[in-house]
Amino acid sequence: MPKSRLEAFSDGVIAVIITIMVLEMKVPHGADLEALLPLWPVFLAYLLSYIYVGIYWNNHHHLMHAVVAINGSILWANLHLLFWLSLVPFVTGWMSENHFAPFTVALYGAVLMLCGLAFVLLTRCLVTIHGRDSQIARWLQDDRKGKISVAIYAVAIPLAFVRWWIAIGLYAVVAAVWFMPDPRIERHSGEVTSRPDRPDTTS
Amino acid sequence: MPKSRLEAFSDGVIAVIITIMVLEMKVPHGADLEALLPLWPVFLAYLLSYIYVGIYWNNHHHLMHAVVAINGSILWANLHLLFWLSLVPFVTGWMSENHFAPFTVALYGAVLMLCGLAFVLLTRCLVTIHGRDSQIARWLQDDRKGKISVAIYAVAIPLAFVRWWIAIGLYAVVAAVWFMPDPRIERHSGEVTSRPDRPDTTS
Amino acid sequence: MPKSRLEAFSDGVIAVIITIMVLEMKVPHGADLEALLPLWPVFLAYLLSYIYVGIYWNNHHHLMHAVVAINGSILWANLHLLFWLSLVPFVTGWMSENHFAPFTVALYGAVLMLCGLAFVLLTRCLVTIHGRDSQIARWLQDDRKGKISVAIYAVAIPLAFVRWWIAIGLYAVVAAVWFMPDPRIERHSGEVTSRPDRPDTTS
Amino acid sequence: MPKSRLEAFSDGVIAVIITIMVLEMKVPHGADLEALLPLWPVFLAYLLSYIYVGIYWNNHHHLMHAVVAINGSILWANLHLLFWLSLVPFVTGWMSENHFAPFTVALYGAVLMLCGLAFVLLTRCLVTIHGRDSQIARWLQDDRKGKISVAIYAVAIPLAFVRWWIAIGLYAVVAAVWFMPDPRIERHSGEVTSRPDRPDTTS
Repeated sequence: MPKSRLEAFSDGVIAVIITIMVLEMKVPHGADLEALLPLWPVFLAYLLSYIYVGIYWNNHHHLMHAVVAINGSILWANLHLLFWLSLVPFVTGWMSENHFAPFTVALYGAVLMLCGLAFVLLTRCLVTIHGRDSQIARWLQDDRKGKISVAIYAVAIPLAFVRWWIAIGLYAVVAAVWFMPDPRIERHSGEVTSRPDRPDTTS
Repeated sequence: MPKSRLEAFSDGVIAVIITIMVLEMKVPHGADLEALLPLWPVFLAYLLSYIYVGIYWNNHHHLMHAVVAINGSILWANLHLLFWLSLVPFVTGWMSENHFAPFTVALYGAVLMLCGLAFVLLTRCLVTIHGRDSQIARWLQDDRKGKISVAIYAVAIPLAFVRWWIAIGLYAVVAAVWFMPDPRIERHSGEVTSRPDRPDTTS
Repeated sequence: MPKSRLEAFSDGVIAVIITIMVLEMKVPHGADLEALLPLWPVFLAYLLSYIYVGIYWNNHHHLMHAVVAINGSILWANLHLLFWLSLVPFVTGWMSENHFAPFTVALYGAVLMLCGLAFVLLTRCLVTIHGRDSQIARWLQDDRKGKISVAIYAVAIPLAFVRWWIAIGLYAVVAAVWFMPDPRIERHSGEVTSRPDRPDTTS
Repeated sequence: MPKSRLEAFSDGVIAVIITIMVLEMKVPHGADLEALLPLWPVFLAYLLSYIYVGIYWNNHHHLMHAVVAINGSILWANLHLLFWLSLVPFVTGWMSENHFAPFTVALYGAVLMLCGLAFVLLTRCLVTIHGRDSQIARWLQDDRKGKISVAIYAVAIPLAFVRWWIAIGLYAVVAAVWFMPDPRIERHSGEVTSRPDRPDTTS
C-alpha cells in the first residue's frame, strides 16, 4: 500500500485545520487601533497554535519521508493523530475568548499532550511494521524530545491554575524544543540535500 | 484516464468534511468545566461522525488502490458518494444540537445508510469496468459487511423513535464492523506490505 | 512547466467550494420534520450547485488530461475560472434564503454563465499553446455544448423575472446537457480505458 | 527531502485561504439589487485579495518549479509565508466591513507587505541551499519587482490616512506589476514549454 494518499489526506486535513483557526479571529466592530487591541489574546493563541500545527506537519513530513510501507493500522493511527489535531482550533478559540482562564489553558495543554501521545503511537506502529533494525527504528529509538515534552506538559497543565502565563510559557518551551532542527534527522537527510544530483536512497 | 486526480479530489473533499464538522462544536461562553460539560452530545456526535468519515476514507483508499482504470461514470459515482458524505456535518450538527431527538437520530442514520449505498454503487461501477474476473471483482464479490450494515441500519433507524441510544449504539456497531481489518484486503495487500522491496504489481 | 500543481490547486479550491456550500444549510432550530421541511429551497439549491461544480470538476479533469504544456497565462485563465466558481456558494445561499426571488435567480444564472465563459476562455488559451493541429484543439473545435449552454442561459436569465422555476428548470437542462457523457472525449479516452495494460500515450 | 509535500501542503493552505475569503461576503437580507449594491466594498476587497493570493500562488509555483532540494529551514520559511497569507482573509474582512476606514486600509497594506517580505525571505533561504551559481540564484539576483513593491507599500500605507482609494490604487499597482509575466522566468520555462516532448531537466 503506497503512502502517497496518506500524505495527501494528512496535508489536506492539516491545511484546513491551520486555516480555519484564523476564522476564530472575528472581525472587530470598530475601525481603529482601539478596536484591534483587545484581539491580542486571540492573536497570541492563534500564533502559538499555528506554530504547534506547523511543527506537527513538519514532523509528519520527516517521519513519512522515512516510511517504506504502511498498512491499515497505520491509517488509523494517523487518523487518531488528526482527530486530536482537529480539536486544536476549538480549544484555541475557547482559551482566547476567555482571556486564558485557568481551566481553558489546562484543557488546551491537555489536547496538545494528547496530540503528542498520538504522534508517539503513530511512530510505534511504524516501527512495528518496519522492524527494529530499520532506519525508521534507529531514528526513533532515542526519543528524548518526546519524553521531555510529556514531562513539561505534566508540569504545565496544573500550573495553569496558578498563573496562566507560566503554562503558556511552558507550552512555548515545548514548541521551541521541537522547532530546533533535529540533528538525527538533518544528519540523514542532509546528505541527500547537499548532493541533490544523487538519487534519494531513503525513500 | 488515470485515477490520481479522482483520489486527490476525494481526499480534499473528505479532509474538508472531517474538519468543518469540528466547527459545529461552538466555543461555550463560560470558562470552566460546567460550561464544557453540556457539549457532551456535540462531542459524542463529532466522534462518531469522525470515525464514520475516517472509515469511508480508509475504504475509499483500499478500493482505489486496486483500481486500474476509471471513466466518466466512475467520476459521477464517486461524486455521488461525496454528496451524501457532505451531508454528514449537517445531520451531525442537527442531531447534537437537539440532544439526539428521535427524528434527528433517524435522519442521521438515513444519511449514513445512503453513504453506504453510494459506496456499494461505486464498487458496482468499478466491477463493470474491470470485468468479473478482475482482482477488484474477486475482492468485492463477498460483500458480507455491506449487507450486514444495511440490515443494521434498517433496524436502527425505526428504533431511534423508541430510544435514541439504541440507534446510536447500532450505528456504532456498524462502525466497529468496518473498523476491524478486512481479512480479504489485508491478505492481498499484506503480501506487498511485508516485502516492500518487491515492486507493487497491483497498481 | 508541469501541470500537476495546477491540477492539485484546482482540486483543492473546488473541493473547498463544494464543501463550504453545505455550510449554507444552517441547522434548523426544531427537531422534527416540520423544522426540516422549510429547508427544501436550500437543499434544492445545494443539489443544483453541487451538480454544477461537479460538472466543472469533471470537465476540468477531462480537459487537463489532454494538456501537454502550460504557461503563465494558463495559470491566470484557470484562476479566473476558479474566481467565478468561488462565487457559486454566495449566489446559491442568497437565492435559497430568499426562496428563489427573481433577481437572485437571475444573478445565480449570470454567475453560472460567467463560469461557462471562463471555461471557454481557458480552453482557448490551451489551444493557443498547443496549436491548431493538436489533439486538444481537435477535441475542442466542435464546441456545440458550450454554444447551447450560453444560448439557454441567455433565455433563462430574463425568464427568472417571469417564473423562477422556468429559469431553474433551464439551468437544470444545461446541467443535463453536460452530465451526458461527451462522445468525443469518451471515444478517445475509452480506448485507453478498455486496455489498461497499454501505456497511456496521451499524457 | 523531496519538495512534493511542501508544494501539496502550500496548495492546500492557499486553496482554503482563497475560498474562505468568500465566506466574508455574507448573504444580504433583501432579495433585490438595492440589497446587493451595499456589498460593493466587500466585493472589491475580495477581488483585490483574490488577485493577491493568486499572485502568491503563481510565484510560489514558479519558484518551487526551479527548486532542487529543500531542508527544515525551507519548511519553516514556507510556513512563515503561509502565516501572513492566512491573515489576508481577516484584514480583508475588517477593511471591507468598515468601508475602507484609514486604519484598516493601512493594516491591510501592512499584512500584504509582510507577505512580500516573507516571500523574499523564502527565496533567500532557497538561494543559501542551492548556492550562488545555481539556476535559482541567477533568476532571483535581479529582484527589481520585489524592491519596487516594498517601495510602493511604504508610500501607500501612510497615504491610507489621507485618502483610502490612493492606498488601494497603489496596492493594485503592485498587483499589476506582478501580474505581468516575468520575462526572466518565462524565458527559461518557455524553452521547456515549447518542446514538451523533451524531458524537463530542471526538476
